[in-house]
Amino acid sequence: MFFHTGELQYHSKPDAPDPVFAKKVQELIGGQFGEMSVAMQYLFQGWSTRGNEKYRDLLMDTGTQELGHIELLATMVARLLEGAPVYEQEKAASDPIVGAIMGGMNPQHAIVHGLGASPKDSNGVPWNAGYIVASGNLLADFRANVNAESQGRLQVARLYSMTDDRGVKDLFSFLLARDTMHQNQWLAAIKDLEAKEGPIVPSTVPPEWEATQFSHILYTNTETSTASQLPWVSQPAPDGHPITVEKPVTMSEKPVLKPGPKEAHDTLPMDKPE
Amino acid sequence: MFFHTGELQYHSKPDAPDPVFAKKVQELIGGQFGEMSVAMQYLFQGWSTRGNEKYRDLLMDTGTQELGHIELLATMVARLLEGAPVYEQEKAASDPIVGAIMGGMNPQHAIVHGLGASPKDSNGVPWNAGYIVASGNLLADFRANVNAESQGRLQVARLYSMTDDRGVKDLFSFLLARDTMHQNQWLAAIKDLEAKEGPIVPSTVPPEWEATQFSHILYTNTETSTASQLPWVSQPAPDGHPITVEKPVTMSEKPVLKPGPKEAHDTLPMDKPE
Amino acid sequence: MFFHTGELQYHSKPDAPDPVFAKKVQELIGGQFGEMSVAMQYLFQGWSTRGNEKYRDLLMDTGTQELGHIELLATMVARLLEGAPVYEQEKAASDPIVGAIMGGMNPQHAIVHGLGASPKDSNGVPWNAGYIVASGNLLADFRANVNAESQGRLQVARLYSMTDDRGVKDLFSFLLARDTMHQNQWLAAIKDLEAKEGPIVPSTVPPEWEATQFSHILYTNTETSTASQLPWVSQPAPDGHPITVEKPVTMSEKPVLKPGPKEAHDTLPMDKPE
Amino acid sequence: MFFHTGELQYHSKPDAPDPVFAKKVQELIGGQFGEMSVAMQYLFQGWSTRGNEKYRDLLMDTGTQELGHIELLATMVARLLEGAPVYEQEKAASDPIVGAIMGGMNPQHAIVHGLGASPKDSNGVPWNAGYIVASGNLLADFRANVNAESQGRLQVARLYSMTDDRGVKDLFSFLLARDTMHQNQWLAAIKDLEAKEGPIVPSTVPPEWEATQFSHILYTNTETSTASQLPWVSQPAPDGHPITVEKPVTMSEKPVLKPGPKEAHDTLPMDKPE
Amino acid sequence: MFFHTGELQYHSKPDAPDPVFAKKVQELIGGQFGEMSVAMQYLFQGWSTRGNEKYRDLLMDTGTQELGHIELLATMVARLLEGAPVYEQEKAASDPIVGAIMGGMNPQHAIVHGLGASPKDSNGVPWNAGYIVASGNLLADFRANVNAESQGRLQVARLYSMTDDRGVKDLFSFLLARDTMHQNQWLAAIKDLEAKEGPIVPSTVPPEWEATQFSHILYTNTETSTASQLPWVSQPAPDGHPITVEKPVTMSEKPVLKPGPKEAHDTLPMDKPE
Amino acid sequence: MFFHTGELQYHSKPDAPDPVFAKKVQELIGGQFGEMSVAMQYLFQGWSTRGNEKYRDLLMDTGTQELGHIELLATMVARLLEGAPVYEQEKAASDPIVGAIMGGMNPQHAIVHGLGASPKDSNGVPWNAGYIVASGNLLADFRANVNAESQGRLQVARLYSMTDDRGVKDLFSFLLARDTMHQNQWLAAIKDLEAKEGPIVPSTVPPEWEATQFSHILYTNTETSTASQLPWVSQPAPDGHPITVEKPVTMSEKPVLKPGPKEAHDTLPMDKPE
Repeated sequence: MFFHTGELQYHSKPDAPDPVFAKKVQELIGGQFGEMSVAMQYLFQGWSTRGNEKYRDLLMDTGTQELGHIELLATMVARLLEGAPVYEQEKAASDPIVGAIMGGMNPQHAIVHGLGASPKDSNGVPWNAGYIVASGNLLADFRANVNAESQGRLQVARLYSMTDDRGVKDLFSFLLARDTMHQNQWLAAIKDLEAKEGPIVPSTVPPEWEATQFSHILYTNTETSTASQLPWVSQPAPDGHPITVEKPVTMSEKPVLKPGPKEAHDTLPMDKPE
Repeated sequence: MFFHTGELQYHSKPDAPDPVFAKKVQELIGGQFGEMSVAMQYLFQGWSTRGNEKYRDLLMDTGTQELGHIELLATMVARLLEGAPVYEQEKAASDPIVGAIMGGMNPQHAIVHGLGASPKDSNGVPWNAGYIVASGNLLADFRANVNAESQGRLQVARLYSMTDDRGVKDLFSFLLARDTMHQNQWLAAIKDLEAKEGPIVPSTVPPEWEATQFSHILYTNTETSTASQLPWVSQPAPDGHPITVEKPVTMSEKPVLKPGPKEAHDTLPMDKPE
Repeated sequence: MFFHTGELQYHSKPDAPDPVFAKKVQELIGGQFGEMSVAMQYLFQGWSTRGNEKYRDLLMDTGTQELGHIELLATMVARLLEGAPVYEQEKAASDPIVGAIMGGMNPQHAIVHGLGASPKDSNGVPWNAGYIVASGNLLADFRANVNAESQGRLQVARLYSMTDDRGVKDLFSFLLARDTMHQNQWLAAIKDLEAKEGPIVPSTVPPEWEATQFSHILYTNTETSTASQLPWVSQPAPDGHPITVEKPVTMSEKPVLKPGPKEAHDTLPMDKPE
Repeated sequence: MFFHTGELQYHSKPDAPDPVFAKKVQELIGGQFGEMSVAMQYLFQGWSTRGNEKYRDLLMDTGTQELGHIELLATMVARLLEGAPVYEQEKAASDPIVGAIMGGMNPQHAIVHGLGASPKDSNGVPWNAGYIVASGNLLADFRANVNAESQGRLQVARLYSMTDDRGVKDLFSFLLARDTMHQNQWLAAIKDLEAKEGPIVPSTVPPEWEATQFSHILYTNTETSTASQLPWVSQPAPDGHPITVEKPVTMSEKPVLKPGPKEAHDTLPMDKPE
Repeated sequence: MFFHTGELQYHSKPDAPDPVFAKKVQELIGGQFGEMSVAMQYLFQGWSTRGNEKYRDLLMDTGTQELGHIELLATMVARLLEGAPVYEQEKAASDPIVGAIMGGMNPQHAIVHGLGASPKDSNGVPWNAGYIVASGNLLADFRANVNAESQGRLQVARLYSMTDDRGVKDLFSFLLARDTMHQNQWLAAIKDLEAKEGPIVPSTVPPEWEATQFSHILYTNTETSTASQLPWVSQPAPDGHPITVEKPVTMSEKPVLKPGPKEAHDTLPMDKPE
Repeated sequence: MFFHTGELQYHSKPDAPDPVFAKKVQELIGGQFGEMSVAMQYLFQGWSTRGNEKYRDLLMDTGTQELGHIELLATMVARLLEGAPVYEQEKAASDPIVGAIMGGMNPQHAIVHGLGASPKDSNGVPWNAGYIVASGNLLADFRANVNAESQGRLQVARLYSMTDDRGVKDLFSFLLARDTMHQNQWLAAIKDLEAKEGPIVPSTVPPEWEATQFSHILYTNTETSTASQLPWVSQPAPDGHPITVEKPVTMSEKPVLKPGPKEAHDTLPMDKPE
């Protein structure tokens, strides 16, 4: 169960309005790796965790924090939109400064949201649940999580140098720090699970299910690709087996499908069926 | 530049038609972690790689292999749809066996695709590019890649026990093996890059950008959460710093936004502005 | 800022597994009017509220409750998926009971989520932020809210008679009650705001902006439509003006667009431009 | 059945081209609450109406009018795109006025549509049917309708002050008026249905289905939220019952899910199952 | 401007309820090539037509007819859903006939739409405007139109043999006929435009823009592909030029991108930049 | 099976960076008719072809070429993004030139992709598989293909005059040429199939399925529409039958649906059921 208190977890107040930057900050709210994604990803993983209560709790704790990060960024966007001439855009054709604002801001901030944040990315594309991962396998999902925190921290770092506003940078310094912690925690959890299960997910596949003769071949275009020169190729793979390098070849014939039944109304066959 | 040859990389021929299983196999083609996702993810990462040509080549080699995996699965789906009574579904109300087929198959296989595969998932949702990741930062992206291969192998493993068809299982044994290799290669590449850059992405954030006092705190509900009992919490974090455990608290005031300008036509304020 | 505790707000335990019903319950989680929608709708409205702090607080209080409702339903779905033979579907062709389960369940519950809930609707379509409304105008948004709670309660009521499971019905009895309260609260808030602003949103449009001669005409097909017989048509409109009934007519000429410039490469014009 | 005549319902001719404003007008065509939404919403509601023929007719009459409104706006967009230098954008880097146009216009107007309107919103996101509501319950749906007309009129009002073009303003004055009428008609219809059924949708839920002890509690964070000070909280709810105010509490235990079967290949359980 | 009359253009009444077939009929309403697509495609093309008023009128006439086809199919779906035991699905586990209905029907028909049609496809995916084409070039768009009518008629033909219901077949016989006419009319219009402009769209590209040495080469895998044996390869192309057959080769070097600036926080380059 | 070589099929190097044009080029990669669409469309058509091996090979050959075209454009976008001041956008408010760049570029190129291409269109909307067509009927699908190549070539032609960069124009000259070839090949293939099957798809519909009395009527608004004056209306249709012109009329009664069962919780009927 969830609770909310009116105060914010951290400061979220820009020095000055900047509707153009508000558009960019949307990526951190409703983008593929925005805070909506990590919040929902951790919560759905937590709700589905079976037989690992401490990790369930970690997921719920962290997902709840991320809800608060959406709040911080939504507040920042609302304040970046305050006090700028966003409804006087008819002047833009003659005033290039206003024109730059007009061109660079998200029109929905003015038309749809009345100067509030939107659950969309920096191009105005709505967030969707196809972004998130909750598989029931914690090692797989923690790899998704460390990726999400890596992409998220990368995006904050890029935005950091795109503004001079000290209030914005103060909030970003907090988000950078929290993303450091979250990368740390998922990396530590991965190490913990890999120690128990080994590095290949899922660890529970019986060996007779797998065509293991293909499990350690690096297929590479031996004529133009330099991939086989990577240093780790000549070392044992993370699961302990040596890697071999091969040029990919076909191992099966050219497939020929049978003509469909007449009810399919496919093109009539010109060729003889198989 | 790409080339194609008519032969398949591996066998892809079921023992018998099974339109219901064909619907499920679609997850491996057009689902969030299907072969369309890994193919496009690796290719777009390769096309954007700057200053690391060997990794660019590895990405292009691997992405090209994945295109061939789409081909294997599309061929399997087309053959699972051959020869079953999918256009005689009016009999379903009285014949429960036909009814089960009818209920379990994807109607678009019959109506839209004429017994061919679809670029959609097991529920018929079209694949979209919001599934893929290409950030320009290889360590971040290789984490996305090892996640994708983990989720993908997990899904193949689950489907393996949902069929008795030896031809399907033969193809799955190949896919399980290749996903083992791909997990191995991305894990090895991650180890290589982490050795150079450290574990926190991006490695290039200047320390003065980050509020480092928050970089190693595990925020947890100290009353009901057991997360702090995880073994790694009492050890140094992957980046070498000790982790501290804290109950989350608010560090800023309750935010109050200013009323919008009259052109926003927001609700008139009942309260005094800030 | 948000907090989470491990205990649930209400009971969420079915008497028996039912993977087919689990698919249907997804509508209440990730459908257009599922709990993800109301949670995110209220939170984004709250974060954007300007000059009406009590309503901001109401929105945050209610949105937080809805997060707990997602939790209740995600837990219910996970438990409905426990203990049923969902990975033995190859038997379905010969066993119609298993076939019915196979046909009726969501394949992603087995393949993608490992028996956990999904942030998607009852057909497996991912939730997206295009479902939610946050306009900055509270009267407009409260109308969206009472609609959302009406649609949501309607869907729970329909599902109620589609199961015999007492545990499921117990949870539904709680959701029906909470939706009653939420309809009540948004209706009361609407009445409050309409008393101040009048019924037409936004109340702040200057009269000279509006072609008021068209503001109270019911356009109807006077030959076949019976709409004008509705009792309220002969009474004053909610804003106090009388309604008139008219057959719609054209008031402007047939438009003719100018041919595009040559750089548009549109079809060459056969007709004379305007 | 539908008929079309070449003449327009109202004037739709701007004084001058303005490709930047054309982008913004798209919100009224293909946005969440654009004319495509209300047209399709009313028509699908009408086609599904059971046992209320006058309301069916009202829905069909109104939906048909909205089709004509798409036409008015599509014509306006096409004319706003006429005669501006949209294909000479290479000059933008040196000419800030052209640069402002370039930055602010929708590139698809030039590249994809050849200076015609698009069925998309002001950010270029395609309209989708997830925006519309047709539930079979008229009271629920009329609440959706009055919301749609409120959001729509709000957006027109905001756009009104973002242009000086008298031709555009003339069309907007007509749309403002029609949205006034449509808010009036749905409000009157809601009043009519509430008089018969009461305010809580659906009215047909038997009392024994509902945990009525929770039907009139306002859950609020009693420490920081001011929601309970709203004037209507101390008055009877719209359905006549008194409202009580409570701090939310948990009423059920911490859920523990059982480990999945081995075929799920979930993480192996570290904890004891329930 | 549009008008509507209550009567239907054609009969739309099934002999008996069939909720499973109702799900399939949705493909013809809200699928990629359903009636929503052709209606919106023709209307948007019409509204954007510049300098070809007769074709504008043809598009508006035909688009208006398609609106009536949505109506016919929505009515059919609503009637296929009448009188079947769709809300008694708890019996499905023991009664395989009800189980088949349960598995095969669209759950949203019962839960979301109250036995009405939905603006979605046969898998429940919402219609979206990314399906439609309106380019401003009539020859291009008429090719889209003849494709849409071909795909649409193909789908009706496939569905025709999937039911025994005479009422459904009567409606389908009308749709087959109208799709015949619409294929005829777009084919005739294409022939008309090709006679004026030639077969290659757009006809207005100056020859010096095009690398014409590549305009008539069929690139084919000369080792395994039989494509060059197609009869028309040895004949002049539709634009009059002879076709040559070549094995594709690379004509440019391996690209090497420059490392990004430090603000991009991309991976540090291991290789020397170009 | 697919192979890749590091060299490019053609040159792809701009003279100078231009992040604003990079945004526009995205339409050719991830737009509705971008190279991702034609690549995936041809490959899925090829994988589903039944009984026409030469056409299967043609589809695979051409689809493979299109993969190389994505590569050319992704390389072009990455190079257009090199060396421009995209991370110094805080200067935009005072420097209109930088402001124009800021307003006109895609923010995700800087924030999400680190100066690489994106699998999205020119507005940042992700590519999705709802754009592509693979029906199993080759004549239908070749009509889709000639449309795709027509729309694609049209878009390249429009972009051609929107830049002065000779490197970009060189790549476009190659794409224009290849689109000429592809239009030629699909037109030739259509002619080949029409000669065998006739012009109406599918050719296999038995005449008794079709209400042929409606197969050659042009329905037109005889009062305002000029469509019947098109020259081909008075000539035989492409399938050889004469066309007649009629004003559309209703041929069936006004439909009245039965009230829903009580479990539907629809609005209670005011009217008498049918």
